[in-house]
Amino acid sequence: MNDNFQTVGLLGRPGDARVHDTLEVLAAHLAKRRRTVLLDAETNGSLDLAGVERLDAQALAGRADLVVAVGGDGTMLHAAWTVAPHDVPLLGINRGRLGFLADVSPPDMVHGIDEVLAGRYQVETRSMLAARLQAGSGEAVDGIALNDIALQRADAGRMLEFETWVDGVFVNTHGGDGLVIASPTGSTAYALSAGGPILAPDLNAMVIAPICPHTLSDRPIVVGGDTRVDVRIIERGNTMAQVVCDGRVLGEMGPGDLLTATKSETHVTLLHPCGHDYYKILRSKLHWGRGSSGRSGNGPPGS
Amino acid sequence: MNDNFQTVGLLGRPGDARVHDTLEVLAAHLAKRRRTVLLDAETNGSLDLAGVERLDAQALAGRADLVVAVGGDGTMLHAAWTVAPHDVPLLGINRGRLGFLADVSPPDMVHGIDEVLAGRYQVETRSMLAARLQAGSGEAVDGIALNDIALQRADAGRMLEFETWVDGVFVNTHGGDGLVIASPTGSTAYALSAGGPILAPDLNAMVIAPICPHTLSDRPIVVGGDTRVDVRIIERGNTMAQVVCDGRVLGEMGPGDLLTATKSETHVTLLHPCGHDYYKILRSKLHWGRGSSGRSGNGPPGS
Amino acid sequence: MNDNFQTVGLLGRPGDARVHDTLEVLAAHLAKRRRTVLLDAETNGSLDLAGVERLDAQALAGRADLVVAVGGDGTMLHAAWTVAPHDVPLLGINRGRLGFLADVSPPDMVHGIDEVLAGRYQVETRSMLAARLQAGSGEAVDGIALNDIALQRADAGRMLEFETWVDGVFVNTHGGDGLVIASPTGSTAYALSAGGPILAPDLNAMVIAPICPHTLSDRPIVVGGDTRVDVRIIERGNTMAQVVCDGRVLGEMGPGDLLTATKSETHVTLLHPCGHDYYKILRSKLHWGRGSSGRSGNGPPGS
Amino acid sequence: MNDNFQTVGLLGRPGDARVHDTLEVLAAHLAKRRRTVLLDAETNGSLDLAGVERLDAQALAGRADLVVAVGGDGTMLHAAWTVAPHDVPLLGINRGRLGFLADVSPPDMVHGIDEVLAGRYQVETRSMLAARLQAGSGEAVDGIALNDIALQRADAGRMLEFETWVDGVFVNTHGGDGLVIASPTGSTAYALSAGGPILAPDLNAMVIAPICPHTLSDRPIVVGGDTRVDVRIIERGNTMAQVVCDGRVLGEMGPGDLLTATKSETHVTLLHPCGHDYYKILRSKLHWGRGSSGRSGNGPPGS
Repeated sequence: MNDNFQTVGLLGRPGDARVHDTLEVLAAHLAKRRRTVLLDAETNGSLDLAGVERLDAQALAGRADLVVAVGGDGTMLHAAWTVAPHDVPLLGINRGRLGFLADVSPPDMVHGIDEVLAGRYQVETRSMLAARLQAGSGEAVDGIALNDIALQRADAGRMLEFETWVDGVFVNTHGGDGLVIASPTGSTAYALSAGGPILAPDLNAMVIAPICPHTLSDRPIVVGGDTRVDVRIIERGNTMAQVVCDGRVLGEMGPGDLLTATKSETHVTLLHPCGHDYYKILRSKLHWGRGSSGRSGNGPPGS
Repeated sequence: MNDNFQTVGLLGRPGDARVHDTLEVLAAHLAKRRRTVLLDAETNGSLDLAGVERLDAQALAGRADLVVAVGGDGTMLHAAWTVAPHDVPLLGINRGRLGFLADVSPPDMVHGIDEVLAGRYQVETRSMLAARLQAGSGEAVDGIALNDIALQRADAGRMLEFETWVDGVFVNTHGGDGLVIASPTGSTAYALSAGGPILAPDLNAMVIAPICPHTLSDRPIVVGGDTRVDVRIIERGNTMAQVVCDGRVLGEMGPGDLLTATKSETHVTLLHPCGHDYYKILRSKLHWGRGSSGRSGNGPPGS
Repeated sequence: MNDNFQTVGLLGRPGDARVHDTLEVLAAHLAKRRRTVLLDAETNGSLDLAGVERLDAQALAGRADLVVAVGGDGTMLHAAWTVAPHDVPLLGINRGRLGFLADVSPPDMVHGIDEVLAGRYQVETRSMLAARLQAGSGEAVDGIALNDIALQRADAGRMLEFETWVDGVFVNTHGGDGLVIASPTGSTAYALSAGGPILAPDLNAMVIAPICPHTLSDRPIVVGGDTRVDVRIIERGNTMAQVVCDGRVLGEMGPGDLLTATKSETHVTLLHPCGHDYYKILRSKLHWGRGSSGRSGNGPPGS
Repeated sequence: MNDNFQTVGLLGRPGDARVHDTLEVLAAHLAKRRRTVLLDAETNGSLDLAGVERLDAQALAGRADLVVAVGGDGTMLHAAWTVAPHDVPLLGINRGRLGFLADVSPPDMVHGIDEVLAGRYQVETRSMLAARLQAGSGEAVDGIALNDIALQRADAGRMLEFETWVDGVFVNTHGGDGLVIASPTGSTAYALSAGGPILAPDLNAMVIAPICPHTLSDRPIVVGGDTRVDVRIIERGNTMAQVVCDGRVLGEMGPGDLLTATKSETHVTLLHPCGHDYYKILRSKLHWGRGSSGRSGNGPPGS
């Protein structure tokens, strides 16, 4: 990681006026700080800034020392797929509402950027998942996911029946709508809706959560992060499924095909302002309690 | 671990006729194999076997090279607390119905014992939890648990309000019936009933599962196994709770007291017959599917 | 209802050897009892019985005084759709494993039929749901369901966003995989997998259960059986869904279309052997407990 | 119901400054409207208003034509128990945060009262539950509940084992922390935390929700509102439980005792401002979505 962050790439959700304004402020500020600024060509067609080079996201990630993404969790996912192969750190600016991954708010943005440029930040590594969908014929297609790999039935009205293995050991025959295999980052997304637990972001683990399982005791399982999870659709059902990585369709899957999930060799390096607090974000996003302020007179235990 | 297992201690649930019979067979067989046999004094008053020394459980665990427990998961918990401080391996014989911890069935018992004595077995280490309940006055009481540490409200009809911290970082203010902090071993017990996930038995993690939480998004969290979890009851509620380790009351807890859960320095070493299969036990205990036999024509993937 | 049951129609899942054998025994026995026997033409091509007229299911239901269906819950659903418009009573024979709707086992079948022919049986009316899917253009398609009407997203990887109304009153904006609207009969099927409750079979109610809701507090709602439930997909998402009645696709639904669920004017009349016990079936199907025998020394309360 | 509401009784949570202020404004306004004002003697010791008679809650409910309660849902429960035997209508003023039962906010209070006095309001009847706890010896104690009747284990660390019957038909043997039997009003309280559904407030039903059931398929059941639910603790466990009505302990229950829940003969008559919207309250209390405004361009369906 080049700590000087001489070249900064900017990414944002196209066609969002707030994102447009935020990118303009960011670009101007970075120029003032004598940084080379790159802008994702797809980000916003009408955004034309003096001295800012536009190029496609992969080229941007290949040249940048730091990528700053502006938007919600969807934009951050997109940014994560972009930076992961290049191992460039990523900083997320939200659009007014705290995101799980974009934790700098627009009003704090300029100060936050200055802190990062000055070397004051926290580094967090988020693991990613690798999916391999291998057809019975032997052909394979690969995908990566920051959040999750989902197996979802493609035939409305029919139950999907499939089997799971953990490191080659048979786990279960499942009937239902499918399965979510999520990283700690993804544990607060689809897997949570499917009944999975929250995984601490630095836990070396993944969660395997059945979607609407036919058997009520078919509950989410948390396995080690270096585990290989295999999934097969059982022959007799002849139902088809789709394999989806972070919401992008990887391919169709039927009986005879094999889906394998493992930890990806790539990961995402997130930069946070100092004082970043994962559980504070969780409380905000999940509407937990009314905070702790004033409720406990004792301060944090162990203090 | 003394692999010769020259001295074998026997434990069993008192007053159960099937356990009595099983212990008799075991003792006779071990004598035939020229092992010194010790019997827990509390196990069964009427059981008097020639050449078998009776002594209390702690003394037994102190002298034995191997402890064999006969009974259900309750008996295995008791055996685990007994052997843990002495680091003696434990083998569990069930009473006809597969247990999570007692996976040798009576008909396979004699063969299983011979295999173990011959050095053919699998070793599995199960982590334990340490609980410290510290009163506002400074006095503290300690407990250990193989399954779980539970905080349960003591006042019927009143919601318990409490706060949690993970490694000193505030997590949440909870309202509800309490909290279960479970090891992987305990993840299939009380925590599962409270909505928690199943943790793979070798995962270095613990699950923090709220019991009937007032806030529906207050979901189970899985944290690293070396994490310190702190719990405080909030002042204004003035409600009392009980702290329970593996079903045994550790003490009463009120506002001003601090409950801390960490990984215990002790653990349990389980011996299993070769071919032990955790997921097979899980499928049996949770009434999962009808097994995989004949459902997939492809055999295990990756083979 | 013609209590004499002079004409009996037989239905069964095609191509199942056990069903074939059961139908042969049934047809022979009914002929012995001097009943006119009709056989569904699709039931089994190779089944050719002297004196048994074959005709299509609708014609069969139009002429029969009683329909006997042999198979699992899938066959019973099919039989229910068939008999409902004709208001013919339905008796279900399972294939060895108790079904929610087929509660007569093959060994008890001959005795059970004789009891019914002799007028000794219990009558149970199960309500059905009516679905109307109205396109923005005004065209509408109608369906009926014994179990449930499901709205399921058709675009893998994208959350479906939709709104619900109860008798014209706005209920909620939902994000997730879709929605199940179930009758009491269907409450133990898909809706149960989605987190819904069990509804007593005679309760005049329906359950609206979100599928993997984005918002964790978006919980199942039970409303009166005569309620009108309206569902719309919100405009901005531009996602498509499928509407499915008892597993059969009714049609595609997009923004601008309206799905309405009400109680159907048709219903299913089930005949049961005397002593029929819904909760006994529930205990068996859901693997509940080990029964009550011998656990309570007091017998049923109030006795 | 005396529609003139000549005599108005005021109830509020004692010792809350905001409640105190609200009651003062209310009393003054009602005097201006020439109503006789009664004040619950326990409500607030320091509140002394000219021309306001103080008397105990039961006497107040016996003389009032309308009771106005100021506070949260706890205060409303208390008010409900008070008014139910006298069949006096109840109007709830919240303390700034919308309550399930107190839906008039302080700023709208004076206008709301005037509307009610002028006869412009909606009437809603909420059913109540009757609990009878009958000891093995024959002695019985009775209670009523607006929300729920809960059976909760009294012995920390031990599973409670109990059996349920619905109208004399055996339902299930349960193991776990206990059971909540809730009215539609109570379906959004403890039963919801235990995994139960939301029941529409006018549904003639009750929900039976197990608390942390040992068997994962032991799910909530919704039965008709006129059903009798019986509960017994099984003999062999020898565990004790507490029976709690709306959070108030009714008594201890052990093996041999019988708990019976039925619909109460009394009910609560709630008055609401015109335009009262149950689902709006639900959306607010459960933090549902971001409302429907602007999300659907189509307006309510059927319009």
